[in-house]
Amino acid sequence: MIQIPLDVAPEHRSTYARHMETVTQASDRIMLFAGDQKVEHLNADFYGEGISEEDNNPEHMFAIASKARIGAFATQLGLLAHYGMDYKDIPYIVKLNSKTNLVKTTQAEPQSSKWLGVDQVMEFKKNSNLPIVGVGYTVYLGSEYESDMLQEAARIVYHAHVNGLISVLWMYPRGKAVIDEKDPHIIAGAAGVGATLGADFVKVNYPSAGSAGSQQAGSGQVQKRAELLREAVAAAGRTKLICAGGEKEDVPTFLQTLYDQIHIGGTSGNATGRNIHQRPLEEAVRFANAIAAVTFDN
Amino acid sequence: MIQIPLDVAPEHRSTYARHMETVTQASDRIMLFAGDQKVEHLNADFYGEGISEEDNNPEHMFAIASKARIGAFATQLGLLAHYGMDYKDIPYIVKLNSKTNLVKTTQAEPQSSKWLGVDQVMEFKKNSNLPIVGVGYTVYLGSEYESDMLQEAARIVYHAHVNGLISVLWMYPRGKAVIDEKDPHIIAGAAGVGATLGADFVKVNYPSAGSAGSQQAGSGQVQKRAELLREAVAAAGRTKLICAGGEKEDVPTFLQTLYDQIHIGGTSGNATGRNIHQRPLEEAVRFANAIAAVTFDN
Amino acid sequence: MIQIPLDVAPEHRSTYARHMETVTQASDRIMLFAGDQKVEHLNADFYGEGISEEDNNPEHMFAIASKARIGAFATQLGLLAHYGMDYKDIPYIVKLNSKTNLVKTTQAEPQSSKWLGVDQVMEFKKNSNLPIVGVGYTVYLGSEYESDMLQEAARIVYHAHVNGLISVLWMYPRGKAVIDEKDPHIIAGAAGVGATLGADFVKVNYPSAGSAGSQQAGSGQVQKRAELLREAVAAAGRTKLICAGGEKEDVPTFLQTLYDQIHIGGTSGNATGRNIHQRPLEEAVRFANAIAAVTFDN
Amino acid sequence: MIQIPLDVAPEHRSTYARHMETVTQASDRIMLFAGDQKVEHLNADFYGEGISEEDNNPEHMFAIASKARIGAFATQLGLLAHYGMDYKDIPYIVKLNSKTNLVKTTQAEPQSSKWLGVDQVMEFKKNSNLPIVGVGYTVYLGSEYESDMLQEAARIVYHAHVNGLISVLWMYPRGKAVIDEKDPHIIAGAAGVGATLGADFVKVNYPSAGSAGSQQAGSGQVQKRAELLREAVAAAGRTKLICAGGEKEDVPTFLQTLYDQIHIGGTSGNATGRNIHQRPLEEAVRFANAIAAVTFDN
Amino acid sequence: MIQIPLDVAPEHRSTYARHMETVTQASDRIMLFAGDQKVEHLNADFYGEGISEEDNNPEHMFAIASKARIGAFATQLGLLAHYGMDYKDIPYIVKLNSKTNLVKTTQAEPQSSKWLGVDQVMEFKKNSNLPIVGVGYTVYLGSEYESDMLQEAARIVYHAHVNGLISVLWMYPRGKAVIDEKDPHIIAGAAGVGATLGADFVKVNYPSAGSAGSQQAGSGQVQKRAELLREAVAAAGRTKLICAGGEKEDVPTFLQTLYDQIHIGGTSGNATGRNIHQRPLEEAVRFANAIAAVTFDN
Repeated sequence: MIQIPLDVAPEHRSTYARHMETVTQASDRIMLFAGDQKVEHLNADFYGEGISEEDNNPEHMFAIASKARIGAFATQLGLLAHYGMDYKDIPYIVKLNSKTNLVKTTQAEPQSSKWLGVDQVMEFKKNSNLPIVGVGYTVYLGSEYESDMLQEAARIVYHAHVNGLISVLWMYPRGKAVIDEKDPHIIAGAAGVGATLGADFVKVNYPSAGSAGSQQAGSGQVQKRAELLREAVAAAGRTKLICAGGEKEDVPTFLQTLYDQIHIGGTSGNATGRNIHQRPLEEAVRFANAIAAVTFDN
Repeated sequence: MIQIPLDVAPEHRSTYARHMETVTQASDRIMLFAGDQKVEHLNADFYGEGISEEDNNPEHMFAIASKARIGAFATQLGLLAHYGMDYKDIPYIVKLNSKTNLVKTTQAEPQSSKWLGVDQVMEFKKNSNLPIVGVGYTVYLGSEYESDMLQEAARIVYHAHVNGLISVLWMYPRGKAVIDEKDPHIIAGAAGVGATLGADFVKVNYPSAGSAGSQQAGSGQVQKRAELLREAVAAAGRTKLICAGGEKEDVPTFLQTLYDQIHIGGTSGNATGRNIHQRPLEEAVRFANAIAAVTFDN
Repeated sequence: MIQIPLDVAPEHRSTYARHMETVTQASDRIMLFAGDQKVEHLNADFYGEGISEEDNNPEHMFAIASKARIGAFATQLGLLAHYGMDYKDIPYIVKLNSKTNLVKTTQAEPQSSKWLGVDQVMEFKKNSNLPIVGVGYTVYLGSEYESDMLQEAARIVYHAHVNGLISVLWMYPRGKAVIDEKDPHIIAGAAGVGATLGADFVKVNYPSAGSAGSQQAGSGQVQKRAELLREAVAAAGRTKLICAGGEKEDVPTFLQTLYDQIHIGGTSGNATGRNIHQRPLEEAVRFANAIAAVTFDN
Repeated sequence: MIQIPLDVAPEHRSTYARHMETVTQASDRIMLFAGDQKVEHLNADFYGEGISEEDNNPEHMFAIASKARIGAFATQLGLLAHYGMDYKDIPYIVKLNSKTNLVKTTQAEPQSSKWLGVDQVMEFKKNSNLPIVGVGYTVYLGSEYESDMLQEAARIVYHAHVNGLISVLWMYPRGKAVIDEKDPHIIAGAAGVGATLGADFVKVNYPSAGSAGSQQAGSGQVQKRAELLREAVAAAGRTKLICAGGEKEDVPTFLQTLYDQIHIGGTSGNATGRNIHQRPLEEAVRFANAIAAVTFDN
Repeated sequence: MIQIPLDVAPEHRSTYARHMETVTQASDRIMLFAGDQKVEHLNADFYGEGISEEDNNPEHMFAIASKARIGAFATQLGLLAHYGMDYKDIPYIVKLNSKTNLVKTTQAEPQSSKWLGVDQVMEFKKNSNLPIVGVGYTVYLGSEYESDMLQEAARIVYHAHVNGLISVLWMYPRGKAVIDEKDPHIIAGAAGVGATLGADFVKVNYPSAGSAGSQQAGSGQVQKRAELLREAVAAAGRTKLICAGGEKEDVPTFLQTLYDQIHIGGTSGNATGRNIHQRPLEEAVRFANAIAAVTFDN
């Protein structure tokens, strides 16, 4: 049974429920194929050693998303505008802000404004007839521009809900004030902020076992890391927590990590990008399907 | 007899009166259960030594608020959207801005913009059918961004009143320019600014007996501290002054302090958060009820 | 005969004339009771040695304004909203911006944004039925934020006029770039800027005899200081110039100064705050009446 | 034959033509009486040694403008509002931005925002019935705030044209990045930028013969300086270039300079302020008429 | 067959297709005559040694554009307003932002805001009847103001498409954070960002063979440089990549470079400005036609 947030307009409650059912495949979890790295990491995730040549074509991500079993594919509206006509059946999440990694945190505090608003997403959904199910936005907590991003995030979640869209927030502590971005306590705080913003899903980094705030967790090293997620999962409450996939890893390790995150840490799935799209199409599809199987079917 | 501010639109005067009667339980005072710390203090107030495990679930605050005798529960709209359907009878105050404590005052001046406006609160009230009675906002006086926050505060109070909502301002002197945040004279100034902004309630920190500006107060140390509030209570005039609850204390001390604040200092109640929600449910409810008894029934 | 500025909308010309007649009591001068210090000076003007205890209650200013003969009482809208119902006959000027004195000019350039706009003042006037006759705004010329304040000032004067309200600008040179805030030449410049902004009245500081720009004035020391105003009065042209009252002085000195400002300097009255409201009610009323007599009746 | 820019709305094309005919007196040139210095130079241009006492009254400029033969009188809207009723026949250009000279370029980069927009000018034109023919705006090229001013300038020119008003841009290279404000090559660049912004007239400083970029000009010293204008006149294309009058000079020198600017440099007239209004009324009128004769009748 | 982006409003799909057909002359490539340098380089590209005297007249570019075979002529709206009536048949692209080169990157981070929006372009298109086919905008990736420009770019592309206009983005990595603006990997990243913004064309600088990121390319020096474009062309996907023309070169070298860019690098044409307009009219037209022949007809 899907619980519909109260800021969803009454006339869009069934739409919201349908979107949530789509991205969770009627489970409690989401498998998010994250494809916003063309801005976040420029071309470093798409071209170079160890990356399939196919990945340098933006269409590669759409091909994977259309053939694999995924909850939703998150990317920028501009790519949807140019590729959507050939990939009409993917559940899309429009990522509304993105920044490059050129300006480092040592030079200036992280800042990322929304490119377009929910109004434009709704207009685009109508003009394009694409199955857009939600929107995404990144907040850099601890940045000196935090105030601007909290404001945009709150409004995006609110307007998404009013219009029956689901909302995903990337909650990343970052900036001079953030000593350890992987500290499980800080990550729990970020997850909790995502909940106060009303997000349906918060994406956080996987807390690190070696972090300052990770002393109180369990014994086994691997198990321990997944346990570090529990504080954040609890702090997020009804907002579902998903872990960022991070850098490319070998398949068994990745799937075991995901399994642990879900079954030990209590997460509601994950958001994977590079680990999928840096592989050739068939391999990427197989891998995405494996992730989906762990996520949706255990 | 409730005095209705003149910026309340004529057609919403009875609504305003009803809201005020609700939060004061027809007394002259308010008992505000403050639950905005998931942003302000990240997860530090909800998880860790000395904090009940239940507190890491955001629902804990709603459970307390629904079972205890309170004037109003103040928290962010996002949490109302996800939990309100199960807690339909709590008088809610939507806290419109919040910032994390990651960026310290030594790094940058405090800044906190409103997440949503009164228009969205009114739309949400209609869509959700929740008994929202007012809005809250924090102003950091003495910050280099003071000008932005004074502007937002004035508009929020004004639009809240126009729509029949009550308004609560958290007035906190903070920033490089503020030597002593607990100086009773500065706090009285902050209370007075809240009055010029038209707030119905101003929440201030409890002035400290050891502060520079506290020389002119009475003899006994404990009594003295509560006396330090009198300047601020007077300066606020018809705007009712309430004290922030602050860090967790033992019950008798807390209740005595509250009693002194009201009966010696002249405050109109208090705003308590951590002291309540860090306890297990039943204890928290009992404690909140005790606070309510002191506040509403003396 | 009142000259009505051409930006007053034709349908509000008689309203404007009535407002001007009210504040000048059909003379050429205004006696402005300035009560915006609860923000500008926090509680320092309202509580402490040499200040009547009554002054710490915001209602004190309303009581004075209602009993004394004044041109207009200038204060923030929030106070009008809470006290206006008991003081329905005072001609009010809504002061639209205010800043605290916590951040000093040595720390950051002065900045003060409007809290509310003329639209809200007009809406409030209608909802409250209060006799609001005009609006006020402070410009810190020479601040690095001067550009923002000039823009807001120009728009506030313009929209006030369009709606038949009179406008008063507090023109204060301030910031790192301003060596001497009391230099008569700079003050004349500030008065001239007020004229280009279209203000009906500009309030300036009383130029100081010891200032760099005061060499060309007359002989007697006291007379000299009032003479220093002549340049500014002329530069303001049809915009009437009034002097800030400044710190508390003994009554005869104050009245003589005012007389000199008017009859030697050529000002159109004054704006007095602290000098009036720091006294007990009856004394304050008597003093205000004396000021009014000097201003309106010579 | 007046060429009407294509951004003029079809229904306002004849209005635009009439305005252009007015300010050029049906010649190809404009004689602009510039009266925005009460902000730009505070009272330094209006009061002091060598300045007629009459000049400290703002009405002095209106008196000159009404009695002399001029193309247009440029000043701020606030002065028009207070004096226009007595000077109903002067073709007015509303100067939309102005800054004081208190903050020097060594302290902060020059910044000057529009006070009012074209919408307000049009509303004022209707309410006042004054013959407003255009708007003016200053751009400080090379300032770190250049981007804001280019945006405002482009929009002001565009909206002025849409409404049938003519537009004059003051194009001044200024800021830390500008080594030599009088360099003819930089000035030509500024003139060209004015053309891309769509201005009808660009006002630039008179390039200086001693400047770095002035090597390629002719032989005679005086002639040489006027020749330095040719690059800028050409670069401005259909946007007519006028020179700022600058500081007060003796009459024959001034008129010869103007003649050279027009006949050697190729300018379309000049903008003169101080040189005119610092004189007593009759002398000022005679001087303005002489300028007009050189400009319009050769 | 032209592929129409999904953000084009259904009622403007045929308009978009017609515009695209115009600028590509029904090929897959564009020949863009870039004429925005009057702001970007002030007068340095139009006047001086080695530049035809005709070029200092803005009309020179229009004359070339009208006589030569080009895809589109990109310049600022202000110039279209003043020259368009005599050049009614040129396909125009309105360049919406421009900055001067006065403030260097060593002084401040590059920043360039849009002068006008797509709404104004559409209004102007209607008022002027000019064949405006699209809009252009520059993004400085890696600037600390990147966030502002990404937002404006995304909205301009989106609104251009909604209205049936094509969009061209100048994607330039620039700022303290950018070590090598010609690094092929960074340029590929910039091209990819252009794709996520939804642009139809991205204009990038020609990657340099000597750059850090150019190790993996082919053998021959000349061929090698064109090969460096392949990564960017692939990364841009369906967004067509065009190279900036850069500084003036001799004709055979320029045409060979262009041929290599297209046939080795895979670009969809180029954007040439200075190389064309610095020549006398007939020579410029011949050269533009040669570029068109290489671009459109191979």
